[in-house]
Amino acid sequence: MTEYEALTPESLAQRLGGLNAMVEKIGGDFKSWDVQEVGDGNLNLVFIVKGTQGTVIVKQALPYVRLVGDSWPLPLKRAFFEYHAMSRQAAHDPGRVPQILHFDETQALIIMEFLTPHIILRHQMMAGDKVDELGSVIGKFCARTAFRSSDLSMVTKQKKADVALFSDNVELCDITENLVFTDPYFDAEMNQHNAPRLDEYVQILRADESLKVEVQHMKRAFSAKAECLCHGDLHAGSIMVTGQEAKVIDPEFAFYGPFGFDIGMLIGNYLMAYHSMSSHIKDPAQCASYQAWILDVISDTWTSFCDEFSKLWHSERNGILYPSSLYEDQGHDAASVMALEQLLDEIFADLLGFAGIEMHRRILGLAHVAELDSIEDLDERATNETKALALGRMLVLNRKSIRDIAQVNALAAKFENGDLT
Amino acid sequence: MTEYEALTPESLAQRLGGLNAMVEKIGGDFKSWDVQEVGDGNLNLVFIVKGTQGTVIVKQALPYVRLVGDSWPLPLKRAFFEYHAMSRQAAHDPGRVPQILHFDETQALIIMEFLTPHIILRHQMMAGDKVDELGSVIGKFCARTAFRSSDLSMVTKQKKADVALFSDNVELCDITENLVFTDPYFDAEMNQHNAPRLDEYVQILRADESLKVEVQHMKRAFSAKAECLCHGDLHAGSIMVTGQEAKVIDPEFAFYGPFGFDIGMLIGNYLMAYHSMSSHIKDPAQCASYQAWILDVISDTWTSFCDEFSKLWHSERNGILYPSSLYEDQGHDAASVMALEQLLDEIFADLLGFAGIEMHRRILGLAHVAELDSIEDLDERATNETKALALGRMLVLNRKSIRDIAQVNALAAKFENGDLT
Repeated sequence: MTEYEALTPESLAQRLGGLNAMVEKIGGDFKSWDVQEVGDGNLNLVFIVKGTQGTVIVKQALPYVRLVGDSWPLPLKRAFFEYHAMSRQAAHDPGRVPQILHFDETQALIIMEFLTPHIILRHQMMAGDKVDELGSVIGKFCARTAFRSSDLSMVTKQKKADVALFSDNVELCDITENLVFTDPYFDAEMNQHNAPRLDEYVQILRADESLKVEVQHMKRAFSAKAECLCHGDLHAGSIMVTGQEAKVIDPEFAFYGPFGFDIGMLIGNYLMAYHSMSSHIKDPAQCASYQAWILDVISDTWTSFCDEFSKLWHSERNGILYPSSLYEDQGHDAASVMALEQLLDEIFADLLGFAGIEMHRRILGLAHVAELDSIEDLDERATNETKALALGRMLVLNRKSIRDIAQVNALAAKFENGDLT
Repeated sequence: MTEYEALTPESLAQRLGGLNAMVEKIGGDFKSWDVQEVGDGNLNLVFIVKGTQGTVIVKQALPYVRLVGDSWPLPLKRAFFEYHAMSRQAAHDPGRVPQILHFDETQALIIMEFLTPHIILRHQMMAGDKVDELGSVIGKFCARTAFRSSDLSMVTKQKKADVALFSDNVELCDITENLVFTDPYFDAEMNQHNAPRLDEYVQILRADESLKVEVQHMKRAFSAKAECLCHGDLHAGSIMVTGQEAKVIDPEFAFYGPFGFDIGMLIGNYLMAYHSMSSHIKDPAQCASYQAWILDVISDTWTSFCDEFSKLWHSERNGILYPSSLYEDQGHDAASVMALEQLLDEIFADLLGFAGIEMHRRILGLAHVAELDSIEDLDERATNETKALALGRMLVLNRKSIRDIAQVNALAAKFENGDLT
């Protein structure tokens, strides 16, 4: 088929039945394939296709935002960026993303490994279930994909080519630029929040001029700090887990951005989950224990990022930046360590800024998180949301002076206990 | 002609005689054209072609570095980037670059306006001659080209397309990455300096671990802070002047980089000129007066950059960053001003870093400046060079704490007076 056409559960087997990649993975008798459309995201078609020998995921972009309809067109080429981002992530952190079996650019579709019995991390957390080594595994993923896609490691000609390639992911960056960094901070049309309960705090937030200055500095970093290939949308809906394993999916928002972007957005999401938990786990002791686990995950994520980034710094720093010819080769190991630590400090400050902004946009903007939105008692929901908003503000405003991740967790605990001063 | 072939003074008229752009500008009888090759730069062929009605410049890239020979190949596509950069500069600051008459991508040649009686700013300064409004004019040029090529002003889709386009200027960026940010700070093969007189201070500099950390942070900004289209090589050899006018040429190193890059490199060059003047103007009073003028140019350049950037901030801030929807439209003009001032502070800190590094690489690296290299008394030259090296180190190390441009000039005067402590 030479022109794009959206798949349906009815047409899929017929249309993809001749593909070797499918046939080899799930079995050749395509008429017996079981096809279910399961896309619960905002943008795409997602099919689970089961044959006699196996199961795969078929993900196809739609030419518009699924959540909104064809009044909001969105280019099919996002599948191209997702494919290229996943390929690079697979190379940078093998096994952490689903295996790609086939990519069809015209049809904007990717056929990939079916993860089972994995569920979305968000659902795992709302059920109060843990994931072994979650912080460590995803912290490493963030460090590896960041370091290995940057001028710390890549041949710069190739890095510059990738900057050029991903620069074309304009429309998905545009979503982030507007919905994350702008709309939440004024009364924009597509915003929604838990009104009228949050109105007062929202007004305070939107009147905070220092906050709005910092947020735009962070937006400038988003738009111009092309340090590494970012996933672009790393949150609890982009991680699939079992109790023992975590995998990363859906990098269609991929772009070249700051080292601290992905891990910052993710930690912002963890902090929102933390502040929502009292509504999901009614037993106070159980809740406290799970919340402590979330804070451990946050702390492990950052610690593991630092450990892995440092390890790669000393073992794979073969790019143009901070070359060993200037440091280790001159007996100046101290300079190398000092540069690394200052860089990690800068990444941490960026992380805090992005985390705080993510906490605002998921409560005040168009796209929310189920951890908070699913809370039925709207007063209770507003209480949790206010904690997250206030913590987010604190993180953005103090991103350069907050010392370490323990201080972040201490602030979260303070706000959770109702001390918002 | 479908394949590239270098022009010669003999072949030029025959080969370009049929071009309308030439014929219209200088007259149609190409056999009478007077052709002189005058390229005194490091990279290209430059011809002055005079006809009965006028004169033009024909600039053609060579497939290697002219200064070194064909052992150092350099791609012809740099003419493509020069053409695109000049076109954009012409749009952003009309009249400040020579008019482009013709571009031939295959032949890697640009035909442009012949500037007369302009000479290179470097020669103007070494002769002790001033240029009216130099600081103001070039400061404005830097501000306009920076602001208008950034996400402060451009449609972001177009800005991202330009980031992609200029990302391919790999080989010229590679020259900067190596010769500016790396080689000067260790004993690299192509380095040269005024040995043995400078040896002791060079050793101190190359042993300064804090300095080498800061320099690599600046290199990271060069490689990843894609804020605006930079000229990429703005120094006293890229500005042509009369006593009343200044024009900018030679943007073949163009790349997307930090707002503070061009103006920083330029101010680094002015500071080197400042420290060389006692060797070029033997009358102490005259020398002091000319040095005072150079410091005024430095101060005017930055002040004028700030004024123009601020003016554009308030009149042309139509890009995605710091949108008025969040600031002025909410009655939050103070936020807008605060954001602008913080951004200018950040640009100033970057400027100082790049200025200091430029002062090091022009004394310790491969490519030097005539202001210093032409000083015949090698002891005297070393004295001047040491002042520049020490000031450069001061600027890099203190780039975040130096308050304003007056403090920079005061430091320069202090070093010039021999106080290197």
